[in-house]
Amino acid sequence: MTAKKLSIKHLVGLEGVPAQDIHLFLDTAESFREVLERPIKRVPTLTGVTVLNFFYEPSTRTRTSFELAEKRLSADIINFSTITSSVSKGETLKDTIRNIESMKVDMIVIRHKHAGAAAYMTQVTDAIVLNAGDGAHEHPTQGLLDMLTIRQHTKKPWKDLRVVMVGDMRHSRVIRSDIWGLKAVGASVAICGPPSLIPYGVEAFGVDVYHDLDEALKDANVVNVMRIQLERQEGGLFPSLREYNRLFGLTRERLKRARPDLVVMHPGPMNRGVEIDTEVADGPQSVILRQVTNGVAVRMACLLLLAPQKNQSN
Amino acid sequence: MTAKKLSIKHLVGLEGVPAQDIHLFLDTAESFREVLERPIKRVPTLTGVTVLNFFYEPSTRTRTSFELAEKRLSADIINFSTITSSVSKGETLKDTIRNIESMKVDMIVIRHKHAGAAAYMTQVTDAIVLNAGDGAHEHPTQGLLDMLTIRQHTKKPWKDLRVVMVGDMRHSRVIRSDIWGLKAVGASVAICGPPSLIPYGVEAFGVDVYHDLDEALKDANVVNVMRIQLERQEGGLFPSLREYNRLFGLTRERLKRARPDLVVMHPGPMNRGVEIDTEVADGPQSVILRQVTNGVAVRMACLLLLAPQKNQSN
Amino acid sequence: MTAKKLSIKHLVGLEGVPAQDIHLFLDTAESFREVLERPIKRVPTLTGVTVLNFFYEPSTRTRTSFELAEKRLSADIINFSTITSSVSKGETLKDTIRNIESMKVDMIVIRHKHAGAAAYMTQVTDAIVLNAGDGAHEHPTQGLLDMLTIRQHTKKPWKDLRVVMVGDMRHSRVIRSDIWGLKAVGASVAICGPPSLIPYGVEAFGVDVYHDLDEALKDANVVNVMRIQLERQEGGLFPSLREYNRLFGLTRERLKRARPDLVVMHPGPMNRGVEIDTEVADGPQSVILRQVTNGVAVRMACLLLLAPQKNQSN
Repeated sequence: MTAKKLSIKHLVGLEGVPAQDIHLFLDTAESFREVLERPIKRVPTLTGVTVLNFFYEPSTRTRTSFELAEKRLSADIINFSTITSSVSKGETLKDTIRNIESMKVDMIVIRHKHAGAAAYMTQVTDAIVLNAGDGAHEHPTQGLLDMLTIRQHTKKPWKDLRVVMVGDMRHSRVIRSDIWGLKAVGASVAICGPPSLIPYGVEAFGVDVYHDLDEALKDANVVNVMRIQLERQEGGLFPSLREYNRLFGLTRERLKRARPDLVVMHPGPMNRGVEIDTEVADGPQSVILRQVTNGVAVRMACLLLLAPQKNQSN
Repeated sequence: MTAKKLSIKHLVGLEGVPAQDIHLFLDTAESFREVLERPIKRVPTLTGVTVLNFFYEPSTRTRTSFELAEKRLSADIINFSTITSSVSKGETLKDTIRNIESMKVDMIVIRHKHAGAAAYMTQVTDAIVLNAGDGAHEHPTQGLLDMLTIRQHTKKPWKDLRVVMVGDMRHSRVIRSDIWGLKAVGASVAICGPPSLIPYGVEAFGVDVYHDLDEALKDANVVNVMRIQLERQEGGLFPSLREYNRLFGLTRERLKRARPDLVVMHPGPMNRGVEIDTEVADGPQSVILRQVTNGVAVRMACLLLLAPQKNQSN
Repeated sequence: MTAKKLSIKHLVGLEGVPAQDIHLFLDTAESFREVLERPIKRVPTLTGVTVLNFFYEPSTRTRTSFELAEKRLSADIINFSTITSSVSKGETLKDTIRNIESMKVDMIVIRHKHAGAAAYMTQVTDAIVLNAGDGAHEHPTQGLLDMLTIRQHTKKPWKDLRVVMVGDMRHSRVIRSDIWGLKAVGASVAICGPPSLIPYGVEAFGVDVYHDLDEALKDANVVNVMRIQLERQEGGLFPSLREYNRLFGLTRERLKRARPDLVVMHPGPMNRGVEIDTEVADGPQSVILRQVTNGVAVRMACLLLLAPQKNQSN
């Protein structure tokens, strides 16, 4: 389907991935968007390739999105979750993985609560690894689908774009992946949130830091609003939900003060009325559901481009 | 496969569904019974159609039956249960559904503990919705499979048939769907149970109410015995299991006093020795397992007839 | 694919299975090993055959291995676990099975915590039953994959082979299946473990019993190390993990005293450092991961040879 090749073998994160790989992911995903609009949304590209979905954390949209992407490509799918498996029997993660690999699995999609789980997996298996989110480390397919959505809804070159991310930078793997990807292609990136939720030294990544959302949104082309994990509140990291909404929520009033063509994004699931108002989430500037659709296309692209070579010749 | 069209777009319940739609469901299901007897029980009818099974309650037979029906029709299937998903993250049902729909899902089969969940879903998604049971509201595919079984095992026109339902009318979605479906095609319907389990004013639906099972069974052609939910007993709604069995259980002795060609049905799972005796459940008048087989055929018919038009032309 | 026929109809255990059936399973599995090395690891052999995976116990490798085997053969698969089903509703196992069978299921793979569950199932269903482990009774596909691995890694006739099994004989269904299978083809079998973990009267099965592992390994061609279930320790059946490792663990030192071509096996999951040392598990004599690969091939063979006849002619 494509003659171009990636420089990476696994997709553990967007950190260190060169711009040309990212462009190839996005261009390929764009071509799959057309497949997804067809009545029959299936191509035989990965026939005979076995993909293991290995979800150590409960997940709705990422798991479903990957599974749909795999089905669209006609892969053979094995689903594996801690809930229905016996991983509690005390076996090491390494042994579990090597066992499953011995069953002749070609690709592994892994979500795990520990940062580094996906990278570790690449060391203990010959299968190709796709990270579906590991702790607070990275969520690279989310980063790519955010970028695809930005590219579709702003008609400017990356170097002329300014993307603001709002929320809990400290615990967000989405933000990390977005930063790495956007910086690689040359976009300008800013983050905004309470000081307690911004990691110390984040300026070293080349991003601007704001604690005032109105100021951050000035001249921004895109705002990507992060989910606030409500359980953090108990840890004293921010005062109250109402306070958070007032200071960092993307409210209708705040949106009016920004550029009229500001693109509004959110990776979901949303806390409506907290980090984003319902009118904004469902308003004309929101591309949130478009992100979800792009997610399937991006994951198809990742699976296709990373798949074992023998199958790409079909 | 069929030139006829339904008047309904979704299958939320049998309430208000016109007789011609019900006949079309049953005739189509009958034609699938033949497919199910073949060595290769698969037809390519729904190739490329993506069906999401969205089960918010644990379920065995309904979930398995729907999944088999979808596989027989070659649909692409996504299974989604609250147990392995992250619906607990506080997202609204509406947001969850709209997200999944954005992944290009064509049809949604939903089971939910709340009455009205399926109807609500039709308002927030463009996908076609099939209700697999919502609280105490309706379970329309069960209603249709009961009707198909009745049609096969009584050789009379609907208007000459008398169907008696025994059990907990107050909490049963099956009874509601059976009543709506049977009344639509002109059958005579009676219900029988302790006064505490019969909703007030049920006569307004055009059904006869009995509190004496022998009397109710007089002249009945079909008896559909409902499962007693044992946990209701603690609520004081009926005195004891032995008492229930004596008064409302379909015992061997009681069966002898009814018409010799009385057809015995039960939607399962059975409490043997409570609402139905083992000799009756396994006896020659029982068509209980035939109901289960019909369930797959009926669900195939529902999926086919409700599927997006583009795919029915294949 | 094969003109030969099994004498058995179900695979409940290896007890009583004649040698020619076992050879047929192993020869067929060997031929599937080649399929598993192909880029496209799928054959259309079981198209249209519906297999129900009925797992009443959590399981990782056995469930995944069966599911992969079924997919490789293009069967239609229904997964059923107690976690996502409503088997808790008080229905008998018999009713659950007869219901599912009524949905036109051809083959049932069952794992259950109670010994005898698979045999019972053959009495209440017309579907073909494959036992995936029932309590402490048998795990016949594990027995067959162990035998296939032994056959591949020792180049001697069965009658010249001596296989030692080490561990908890009392609670191990794997050992039982291994003994029945190996004895049927004429191999010499020994077991070794603490007296508290060796069933009384096991010599009647024609196996030698040892309580000293060094002695047992003398002249052995194969050692199959069983997992110690750590929870047994609390029951006072053996003193401590360190003590167990010292007396019955397959350590590097112990391995040096055995034959240099001793083949090391373990059914997994391993307790590294308890019943087997890491250097041994990962060493050149270990064929543990090969067992896992063979597991898929053996299960393909079992499914194929036991499948309804109509489908074998394809």
